[in-house]
Amino acid sequence: MFFASDNAGPAHPKVMEALIDANNGYALGYGADPIMDEVRAQIRDLFEAPKAAVYLVINGTSANSILLGTMAQPWETIFCADVSHIAEDECNAPEFYSQAKLTLVPTEHAKMAPDALHAKITAEETRGVHGPQRGPVSLTQVTERGTLYSLDEIEELTEVARDFGLKTHLDGARFANALVALDCTPAEMSWKAGIDTVSFGGTKNGALGVEACVIFDPDLAWEFELRRKRGGHLLSKHRYLSAQMQAYLTDGLWLDMARSANARCDQLAEGLRGHNSVELLFEPQANMIYFQMPRSEHQRMLDSGAVYYVTSGDPASGDPDEMLTGRLVTDWAMTPQGVTQFLDLLRG
Amino acid sequence: MFFASDNAGPAHPKVMEALIDANNGYALGYGADPIMDEVRAQIRDLFEAPKAAVYLVINGTSANSILLGTMAQPWETIFCADVSHIAEDECNAPEFYSQAKLTLVPTEHAKMAPDALHAKITAEETRGVHGPQRGPVSLTQVTERGTLYSLDEIEELTEVARDFGLKTHLDGARFANALVALDCTPAEMSWKAGIDTVSFGGTKNGALGVEACVIFDPDLAWEFELRRKRGGHLLSKHRYLSAQMQAYLTDGLWLDMARSANARCDQLAEGLRGHNSVELLFEPQANMIYFQMPRSEHQRMLDSGAVYYVTSGDPASGDPDEMLTGRLVTDWAMTPQGVTQFLDLLRG
Amino acid sequence: MFFASDNAGPAHPKVMEALIDANNGYALGYGADPIMDEVRAQIRDLFEAPKAAVYLVINGTSANSILLGTMAQPWETIFCADVSHIAEDECNAPEFYSQAKLTLVPTEHAKMAPDALHAKITAEETRGVHGPQRGPVSLTQVTERGTLYSLDEIEELTEVARDFGLKTHLDGARFANALVALDCTPAEMSWKAGIDTVSFGGTKNGALGVEACVIFDPDLAWEFELRRKRGGHLLSKHRYLSAQMQAYLTDGLWLDMARSANARCDQLAEGLRGHNSVELLFEPQANMIYFQMPRSEHQRMLDSGAVYYVTSGDPASGDPDEMLTGRLVTDWAMTPQGVTQFLDLLRG
Amino acid sequence: MFFASDNAGPAHPKVMEALIDANNGYALGYGADPIMDEVRAQIRDLFEAPKAAVYLVINGTSANSILLGTMAQPWETIFCADVSHIAEDECNAPEFYSQAKLTLVPTEHAKMAPDALHAKITAEETRGVHGPQRGPVSLTQVTERGTLYSLDEIEELTEVARDFGLKTHLDGARFANALVALDCTPAEMSWKAGIDTVSFGGTKNGALGVEACVIFDPDLAWEFELRRKRGGHLLSKHRYLSAQMQAYLTDGLWLDMARSANARCDQLAEGLRGHNSVELLFEPQANMIYFQMPRSEHQRMLDSGAVYYVTSGDPASGDPDEMLTGRLVTDWAMTPQGVTQFLDLLRG
Repeated sequence: MFFASDNAGPAHPKVMEALIDANNGYALGYGADPIMDEVRAQIRDLFEAPKAAVYLVINGTSANSILLGTMAQPWETIFCADVSHIAEDECNAPEFYSQAKLTLVPTEHAKMAPDALHAKITAEETRGVHGPQRGPVSLTQVTERGTLYSLDEIEELTEVARDFGLKTHLDGARFANALVALDCTPAEMSWKAGIDTVSFGGTKNGALGVEACVIFDPDLAWEFELRRKRGGHLLSKHRYLSAQMQAYLTDGLWLDMARSANARCDQLAEGLRGHNSVELLFEPQANMIYFQMPRSEHQRMLDSGAVYYVTSGDPASGDPDEMLTGRLVTDWAMTPQGVTQFLDLLRG
Repeated sequence: MFFASDNAGPAHPKVMEALIDANNGYALGYGADPIMDEVRAQIRDLFEAPKAAVYLVINGTSANSILLGTMAQPWETIFCADVSHIAEDECNAPEFYSQAKLTLVPTEHAKMAPDALHAKITAEETRGVHGPQRGPVSLTQVTERGTLYSLDEIEELTEVARDFGLKTHLDGARFANALVALDCTPAEMSWKAGIDTVSFGGTKNGALGVEACVIFDPDLAWEFELRRKRGGHLLSKHRYLSAQMQAYLTDGLWLDMARSANARCDQLAEGLRGHNSVELLFEPQANMIYFQMPRSEHQRMLDSGAVYYVTSGDPASGDPDEMLTGRLVTDWAMTPQGVTQFLDLLRG
Repeated sequence: MFFASDNAGPAHPKVMEALIDANNGYALGYGADPIMDEVRAQIRDLFEAPKAAVYLVINGTSANSILLGTMAQPWETIFCADVSHIAEDECNAPEFYSQAKLTLVPTEHAKMAPDALHAKITAEETRGVHGPQRGPVSLTQVTERGTLYSLDEIEELTEVARDFGLKTHLDGARFANALVALDCTPAEMSWKAGIDTVSFGGTKNGALGVEACVIFDPDLAWEFELRRKRGGHLLSKHRYLSAQMQAYLTDGLWLDMARSANARCDQLAEGLRGHNSVELLFEPQANMIYFQMPRSEHQRMLDSGAVYYVTSGDPASGDPDEMLTGRLVTDWAMTPQGVTQFLDLLRG
Repeated sequence: MFFASDNAGPAHPKVMEALIDANNGYALGYGADPIMDEVRAQIRDLFEAPKAAVYLVINGTSANSILLGTMAQPWETIFCADVSHIAEDECNAPEFYSQAKLTLVPTEHAKMAPDALHAKITAEETRGVHGPQRGPVSLTQVTERGTLYSLDEIEELTEVARDFGLKTHLDGARFANALVALDCTPAEMSWKAGIDTVSFGGTKNGALGVEACVIFDPDLAWEFELRRKRGGHLLSKHRYLSAQMQAYLTDGLWLDMARSANARCDQLAEGLRGHNSVELLFEPQANMIYFQMPRSEHQRMLDSGAVYYVTSGDPASGDPDEMLTGRLVTDWAMTPQGVTQFLDLLRG
């Protein structure tokens, strides 16, 4: 009953095996390992992007920050959802790497609407050299509240950006969960929908810690490499990153894991919907649920061994009937039985 | 015959086993895993520093940069050896994290002499607000040319720093190799010799990728944590860092590996000394050798499958008799037979 | 009829005379000129703050940015009004100098309410190392829409900040206009109301280009000096800054000029209120008016030689009846006749 | 007898008059004043560079730093003389604006030799993404020790840079003094000799505080403008910068002032050469002299009212016979009688 985060579960055994296989003899470091050549080919193939630049880093914060640093200038502002990870959860890392600022676009269901994005971009318009200049647009898919942009919605947003000559970034820490939910291809959810760069997550979906940075315009590749090194994010024993990503992508393991995580989320949502005192705050479309429940119920669940975050108040003190928000995240390693156990416990 | 770098060899099997053991069930992320509690205790114990702040990061560049960022102000200059890794091999990462600049102290045998350090610090003296202000001093042990500071030499340097009220950092990417060569304790090679913070390397000595940052003054801990996060260097699935370091330190594995690497280096140096056309440039005191040899000999070795860097010219073109510099690095996984094979080949 | 900005008019003749008087013989540079000693004493006296650190810079952007850089850490967020100059008009300079980010607090009448500030500060609360940390609060007086915080309102805001242990900055580019409007003392509008640092404007009120940075806690003085120099804002021939400020403050010239500018604004507002097609958007309390008027009327005024900004659309094209926003700013050099001329023209 | 610096003297009366003339009525700010149009034309004309981008800032530190920020990338290193102002006297401002680092090239007579520059550029060669990348080359003319590069020497250095594809910057804080000494044209001392950007000083030669940034490639113009604004260096009442530069350039005033300053320096050097206990350290070629003299003599001069810097020790305490270094700088406002007075005093 550990629903605190999809970074709390174990890595998939096949990923571990790949790591052990890679731990054999001597190999050049810093991305010159032969496994990385295979990974690059795998990702270009998956994304139907034979010229894409592909790099690996250890986590989502560095993937987002180095990509945005490569895309934005210090005098620009990056447009993103008001609840985005880059705005709320990265301790100014995107600003550190890009020296740019962020303009927060208001959201519904954690999603920017094209009109809202257009309005914010337009508002940065009339000040010449005085105001921040318009920079790239960053979308998050799966969103921070577990909802999804449809392919059409992504395209509408990237069209707004393109109308202003702006580049677009996709924070895909949960790329796989979104992909299987939308039942589309990586190309459809990225460059075919107008996306220029992708943080392609592995960590939250069964890896130990690896994300790919996919840059469809290879002209940005060298700058990315220098920014990665300057940020301390180029690994010497790079093969251990490569091996993780290789196993992750082989034989559709990444998709299987995402499907499993999403299925557990569906099961959980179904169970929650049947519960009187629970209200779902957003339609769970991938592997994350935000819900409300009385404080006393949260406290009872936590006391019984369920692990998850209550995000809007202290479950341990206050009016027992007050509705508090909780977040449940599922991952590949969860079993139907585990979810059932949680739901049974909830029913009391 | 892979002597290119000590980051080219495999991780130790015990480190891999620890990783697999750690990959079990759910654990809180971001350093709150229980293994990290053990690692912290291990390192405090090793360093006889019960209050030290201890953090793990993925590599030496980030360890050095985040530590120096925590120690230096943007208007200061960091004093370091002219051949130091932070000056030459980190693509401005220390400057990125600290916003400070570096003042290069001339070296002999890759080591700063107290007088030279004193002279450079003094030279930044008389300009008030106009010049860079004096910042921390960073030492590298093992140095970038394979030599060592004796404990007395470290103490003399830190005394110079302390006379000016400056803090000191030890870049210990090869801390273990130095320690076994000097046959001293971690405390003796750090705080007892006046060092304030240590980049304590694991990556080059049998780990996949982990370094500890040891900060003897815990008042700097929170700032370090914020700088680590802001740099994208706080791992969500942190237990995989913890597990590496735990295995590394358990039962003296780290010392055994360093002894083995150093022994291979001794064997190699002994063999090279007996060779007519070879000249050692520095006294190899740990696991790295810089030597000179005619271009034609380098080329013959490389053609025969030896892998190492020729650092002062192209071995493939030019006067065959010109002496070129080569670098050989040994690691824990090398066998006496491997070294013998190299030396036999060299003898022709 | 030049109402575009209070930086468009001339400097006061007494300021020019002081400049000429200062241009005599040789003087030490970089703030060591004897006039600066007098200015420091003048400002400490005015603010009843005998220990305050006092520095001069050339403009409001540098005053705000260097002060905020001195007050905020790179991992923090600075709380400010959503329409503040530091957010909208300084091309990321505050972020450049502080490396921090800005959190925009929603406003009414361009003013933050204590509740709104409290809510934003609280919202940055629960993420530990992951989110931006709480940094200083910056207020603007006169606000960017020509309204004023009462002394009580300032105090309520600084109390909110103080409850969270946060420092406060006052962007006083129009400090004088606010002071005479509120009929209070500089101390009352600053440290007595809980303000820690002040950007004390001169440029918009009759100087050529000078602002004082007033820091009530002298412990921050040396860091400010280093940040000023590092930003390129320490003038060698500093006496020309000192002389401006000296004349500005002597015999209440600064207050006389502010009173005159405010009186012209009152006259203008009075006239606008009597005009059918004009609507004032905010209560003009100092020397700036935001108003709405049909596009055709704006265009007629601009064609007739009035100079001011239409901020919400192109006056030259579109529905002639659409209401567009205009901004009128008065300064010390305007005559009652000039205002009457504008109002007569408006009446048609 | 004030020889401390050429920023210690007064501005020329014609510059002051221009300031007063400019202080008339209303003008658009931020460089849109009509005087700036004239200044731009003047400078393009002077430099025979009809497309050059021309901007004004308040001092040399900001001119150098914003230009280098526009030319260098954060992962690069800027090559400059080891005694250059950007390295020693700007408190890390060039690093702040560029995020790059500096590589110090050893000098003779304060000048980089082409070989020395070539060697330093070459040394940054072989590390791929690991080392700093090669960035622009910055020359100082007049050098920091009062010597001059000949036109041929400048051209040789820029050729070295060009061979590596690197851009070049000229720190011309004393551009005028160099120009009249070399008796050449601004074009010859800049783009015709391979220079890409110039910090064109006015402050040290009779202005209150103004430098022009001249960028021969107008493609860099917009980035410069954004960097200037973001650094807080775009003046609102810009006409007061424009007016200074306009008067400075009109009727060759700037050249007359430089000739006068240089003539006083020649007179001073001639007198010093005739003095037994004085040794000139460099050949004074413009308006600055470094010389050695016994401590007791320095102290006697300072006691008698001479004002200048003793740069190598405390004149007030120590061996009276020890030779200490002094620096004498002349400016436009000095009279032959003033110099004679100093020399008479020296003769005792």
